[in-house]
Amino acid sequence: MTRGHLDVIKRGARLFDTLVVAVAINIEKKPLFPTEERIAMLRETVRAEKIDNVEITTFSGMAVDFVREQGSHVLLRGIRTLSDWENEFQMALTNRALDTGIETVFVMASLEYSYISSRLIREVATLGGDISNFVPPAVEKRLRKQYK
Amino acid sequence: MTRGHLDVIKRGARLFDTLVVAVAINIEKKPLFPTEERIAMLRETVRAEKIDNVEITTFSGMAVDFVREQGSHVLLRGIRTLSDWENEFQMALTNRALDTGIETVFVMASLEYSYISSRLIREVATLGGDISNFVPPAVEKRLRKQYK
Amino acid sequence: MTRGHLDVIKRGARLFDTLVVAVAINIEKKPLFPTEERIAMLRETVRAEKIDNVEITTFSGMAVDFVREQGSHVLLRGIRTLSDWENEFQMALTNRALDTGIETVFVMASLEYSYISSRLIREVATLGGDISNFVPPAVEKRLRKQYK
Amino acid sequence: MTRGHLDVIKRGARLFDTLVVAVAINIEKKPLFPTEERIAMLRETVRAEKIDNVEITTFSGMAVDFVREQGSHVLLRGIRTLSDWENEFQMALTNRALDTGIETVFVMASLEYSYISSRLIREVATLGGDISNFVPPAVEKRLRKQYK
Amino acid sequence: MTRGHLDVIKRGARLFDTLVVAVAINIEKKPLFPTEERIAMLRETVRAEKIDNVEITTFSGMAVDFVREQGSHVLLRGIRTLSDWENEFQMALTNRALDTGIETVFVMASLEYSYISSRLIREVATLGGDISNFVPPAVEKRLRKQYK
Amino acid sequence: MTRGHLDVIKRGARLFDTLVVAVAINIEKKPLFPTEERIAMLRETVRAEKIDNVEITTFSGMAVDFVREQGSHVLLRGIRTLSDWENEFQMALTNRALDTGIETVFVMASLEYSYISSRLIREVATLGGDISNFVPPAVEKRLRKQYK
Repeated sequence: MTRGHLDVIKRGARLFDTLVVAVAINIEKKPLFPTEERIAMLRETVRAEKIDNVEITTFSGMAVDFVREQGSHVLLRGIRTLSDWENEFQMALTNRALDTGIETVFVMASLEYSYISSRLIREVATLGGDISNFVPPAVEKRLRKQYK
Repeated sequence: MTRGHLDVIKRGARLFDTLVVAVAINIEKKPLFPTEERIAMLRETVRAEKIDNVEITTFSGMAVDFVREQGSHVLLRGIRTLSDWENEFQMALTNRALDTGIETVFVMASLEYSYISSRLIREVATLGGDISNFVPPAVEKRLRKQYK
Repeated sequence: MTRGHLDVIKRGARLFDTLVVAVAINIEKKPLFPTEERIAMLRETVRAEKIDNVEITTFSGMAVDFVREQGSHVLLRGIRTLSDWENEFQMALTNRALDTGIETVFVMASLEYSYISSRLIREVATLGGDISNFVPPAVEKRLRKQYK
Repeated sequence: MTRGHLDVIKRGARLFDTLVVAVAINIEKKPLFPTEERIAMLRETVRAEKIDNVEITTFSGMAVDFVREQGSHVLLRGIRTLSDWENEFQMALTNRALDTGIETVFVMASLEYSYISSRLIREVATLGGDISNFVPPAVEKRLRKQYK
Repeated sequence: MTRGHLDVIKRGARLFDTLVVAVAINIEKKPLFPTEERIAMLRETVRAEKIDNVEITTFSGMAVDFVREQGSHVLLRGIRTLSDWENEFQMALTNRALDTGIETVFVMASLEYSYISSRLIREVATLGGDISNFVPPAVEKRLRKQYK
Repeated sequence: MTRGHLDVIKRGARLFDTLVVAVAINIEKKPLFPTEERIAMLRETVRAEKIDNVEITTFSGMAVDFVREQGSHVLLRGIRTLSDWENEFQMALTNRALDTGIETVFVMASLEYSYISSRLIREVATLGGDISNFVPPAVEKRLRKQYK
C-alpha cells in the first residue's frame, strides 16, 4: 500500500457511506507480504488516519462476484494520472462484460502521488533510500525490516 | 448530446439518488443549438428513456461553484476510452485546485459509444449520412432539420 | 486465440485472396497449450466459422523470412484500439529494418473485442468465470478443461 | 501533400493493383490551395515518382460512399507513429458504423516522415525556412510562391 | 506565463550559465497581451524571484536561427507530464531536421504545475475564479484587470 | 547497448564538458552480459566513435546519490519517441522526490533509433537475424558469439 492507495481510500470514504477495501488473495502471485500482514498494514494506517467508515477484508474469486456478495454494485478504482489507465480500462470493460450491473467508478489520486509505483518504491527500499514520502508509516517500518 | 452522453447519464442515474445534468452557458462559445433547445433535447430524451431521478438545468460560472450551490460535492464525468482523458484529467485537477472539497468521479461510457465525437457526427450530418446510431431521436430530428 | 483474433482473421480473409495464419514456434516461451493444440483450435474455429480461404500453419525463425518464403510481401496485424499499438509499431519498424520489402498492414479489431487480453481471460478462467464472450467455443472447452 | 503522404501513396501502390487517391472537397474548410491546384501537385508528384497504378480524383460526400462507388471495399490510411492515431481510430470506427462492409486498412509512414505535420510545415514556410525535406518539389515550389 | 513556465525558467537557470528566455513575435497569432506587456510580466517575475542569470528578449523567424544567433546550440523546453509531449516531440524533430546542430533539451515542470494550461486559466479568469495558484502575481494582476 | 544508447551518449557529449556513463550494478537482475563485458563494449564503442569527453564507470545504490558523488546535479536520460516516456517520467519524479537538487534532463534519440528495443534485438539475434543496424559493432560481435 502506497500513499497513493491511501489517498484513494480517503477519497472513497468521503464519497460513500461505507467503503470496503478488499485485498485479493491470489495463490499464484507471490506478494512481498503475506495477506495477514497486508491486512494489518491497512488496519493500522486507516486507524492512524482516523477514517471510520472503512471495512478491510479479503476476497478470492472474481471482483464482480465479491461486489455482488457485499450487496453493492459499485467498484471503486483509483487512477493515477501518470500511469496504467489503459490497464484500468481493460479491467473495467472485462468486469462489465462479466456483470453488466456492476459499475466501475474512478477517482483520481492526488497529483503528488501520481507517479508512485510499487516497483520503484521496492527498488528504493532495496537500495536503502528514504521511502517515507511514498508509503504510510505502517508500511515503511515493515519494508525497512524486510530489506535491512 | 450523443448516445455516449446519454449512456453516461444512465450510469450516473443508477449510481446516485439524484443526478443533476447541467448545461454550461458560455457566452463566448457558439454551440450549434441555443440553450433552450439543448435543454429540450435533454428533457425529451430523459423522458423517452424513463430515467426518473435526473434534473436538467443550466449553469454559468465555474463548475465547482455550481456543485457547491447544489449542496453536493461530487462532479460526475463520463470518460470515453478512445479519447480526451488527458483533457478530463487536466480539468479535474484544475477543479481540485479551485476547490479541494469537490471530487471528480469518472464512469466509462459504453464501449459501443466510445469513439463517437460531436465533430464527426456533425460532419456526417452535414454530408447527409445516417446519424441514428450516434444520437438519440430527439437530437437526430433537430440535426436533420438543421442540415437539410 | 481470443474472439479478437478471430475477428481479425475474418477481416483479413475478406481483404486478401488467401490468408495464411501462422503460429510462431518459440522454444523459449512456454505457451499455455502446445503447438498442435493451438493449431487444432484454429482449424476447428475457422471451419466452424466457414472461412474458406485461410491456411493455418506454423513458423519458426523471423516473421519477415516466413512472409518471403510464402511468396508474399504483406504482414497483416490486428490492432486493438485499447492496447499495444506501441508494441505493434516497434515490431513493424523492426521488421521494416530487417526487410524493407515487407509491408506491415493493420486492421482494427471490432470494438467489442478491443479490450480483451489473453492475460485477463486466463485470470477469469482460473477463477471459474464465464469466458464464452471472450473466446470461440473450441478454445473455451480446452481452457475449461485446463483450469478445472 | 507532405513527403509523409507521398510515402503512404507509394506503399499503397505496392499493396494494391490500383490505388485511388481522392481529395475531399469540403466547402466549409478553406484549404491553403484550391482543389485543382492540389490535384495538380499530386499528379506532378506521382508522375515524377513514376508510380503508375495511381488514379487521382476528388470526392464530396462521405468517404464510405465514395469507396462503394469505386467498386471497392477498402479504405487505406497512412498512420504516423508520432501522431493522430487516436483521430484515425475514431474516424475508422465511425466509418465502420456507417458501413460495416468497408474495411479501413492502415500502413505506417516511413519513420523519417513520422513527425511531419502540415501545420509545422506551413509555419516553417511562412518564416522562410527550407521545407525541401518535408514536401515533394511540386509542393515546395507552390508553397514558396505562396509565402514569398 | 503560468507558474509552470516560471518553474521551467528556474530549472533552466540552475542548469545553464545564462538562460535566454525568448518571446516569439508571431504576426498571425493574436496573444492575449501585446509583446511589450508579456516581456514586462516576465521581467517583473524574474526580478521578484531573484533569478539573476536570465535574459529576456523577443525573436521572430525560426527558433533554430535564433539559437544560432545567440551563439548557442541548445534549445530548452519544459515538458508538462500531463500534456503535449507529442507536440513537443514533433517540434523538436522538425527543428532537428532544419538544423541538426541544435539540440532540444527537455526538463520536467514540477508536478504541481503539470496540469496547468493557459486555456483553462483563461477560462477560470473569465469566470472570476481565483487564479493565484496558476500564475505569478505579475500575470495575475494583469489578467484580473483584463477580465474585470 | 543499442545504437539508440550510443546516439544519446553522442548528444550528451556535445551538451556537457564531461559525460559520465554509468552502468548500474544490480545484483537481482541478471543482464545478458556481466558488468565487465558491458563496460568493455562501451569503451570499445566510445573509442571507435572518437568521443573524447566520456567517462565510463559503474555504480550501485541510488542514481541520485551517484550523481551527487560525482559532484554533479544533472542526470541525463535519452528518450525514445516510440516508447517508455511514461516510465522515464515516473523515474524522474521519484528521483526528484528523493533529491530535489538533482535535475533530470532529457534528449531525444535520433528518430531512426526510436523504435529499437533491447528485447526485440535479442529476439532477432536469437533467430539469427542481422542486427548490425541496431547495435554498434562491439556489441554485435558479442551478441553473435552468445547466440551462435
